[in-house]
Amino acid sequence: MPPGDDRERLICTECGFIHYENPKIVVGTVIEHQGRVLLCRRGIHPRRGYWTLPAGYLESHETVLDGARREALEEACAEIEVGDLFAVYNIPRLSQVHLFFRASLLREAVACGPESLEVALFRWDEVPDADLAFPTTRWALAHYREVSGQRAFAVRTNPPGDWGDLPKA
Amino acid sequence: MPPGDDRERLICTECGFIHYENPKIVVGTVIEHQGRVLLCRRGIHPRRGYWTLPAGYLESHETVLDGARREALEEACAEIEVGDLFAVYNIPRLSQVHLFFRASLLREAVACGPESLEVALFRWDEVPDADLAFPTTRWALAHYREVSGQRAFAVRTNPPGDWGDLPKA
Repeated sequence: MPPGDDRERLICTECGFIHYENPKIVVGTVIEHQGRVLLCRRGIHPRRGYWTLPAGYLESHETVLDGARREALEEACAEIEVGDLFAVYNIPRLSQVHLFFRASLLREAVACGPESLEVALFRWDEVPDADLAFPTTRWALAHYREVSGQRAFAVRTNPPGDWGDLPKA
Repeated sequence: MPPGDDRERLICTECGFIHYENPKIVVGTVIEHQGRVLLCRRGIHPRRGYWTLPAGYLESHETVLDGARREALEEACAEIEVGDLFAVYNIPRLSQVHLFFRASLLREAVACGPESLEVALFRWDEVPDADLAFPTTRWALAHYREVSGQRAFAVRTNPPGDWGDLPKA
């Protein structure tokens, strides 16, 4: 435990470097286009084969809007305009904080990125609810629809008491 | 550069461990009590002697609300109820993302924590504008007042083009 601190840290015994492990920021988007929502089928673990929203870890020196744009481009070759933040979710088990934004397509063309098996635009009544990858995918889709058409709203967060644990396999 | 990645990472040449450096999350609060706002005078660098809002790095496995409560307790011995998120700021130079929440005091008593020189409740017309510690302190105070009394609003972010660089000393 470093002097003045209140918890144990990894410290190099040679040089005294303190490695602070920090929570990770995930940035994601709900991209709507002509009444359809963009989903990607995951080509990588975890939850390979399941459908997810474009989302991923924010990189160093990146703003959250730039990160959200980069993830949409990487996973769905989608050029997007990012709008309002509508949700902040906590997954404390994984030390993750997720920020979700509304977004729209700047160009109609979308395609699979290297980490996706399929990319598709779903009508809202066709969203594959049983095959969504993560709790945050489900929450973000529901919360996006809750605030649909509203310019001002309270930012959504985890459903009460739900910390995003995956269902037992 | 790890296979499949698109940027350089620190990799252990012995075991292959990849050290991903992630942006840091700062959680902070504007705590209002009977028309006054709580500020702390910093006892540590950077910006020692300047006034700031209770805020600090989120810890691993902590939710953003728990982190905001912990920081208020550590810096101002303040027990608070955390309300709405009203701002998300990016400081890309420092790889920081700041989340600011409204808050109120659960107990009137506040006091200096170990990292503060003074803790005080200021009337809004007495806030020491010229002696605020950080751009985010100034932005958060202004944005808090903008959304005062509103239950629903768009979350605030950096002033356009302002990435929080400190004024030249």
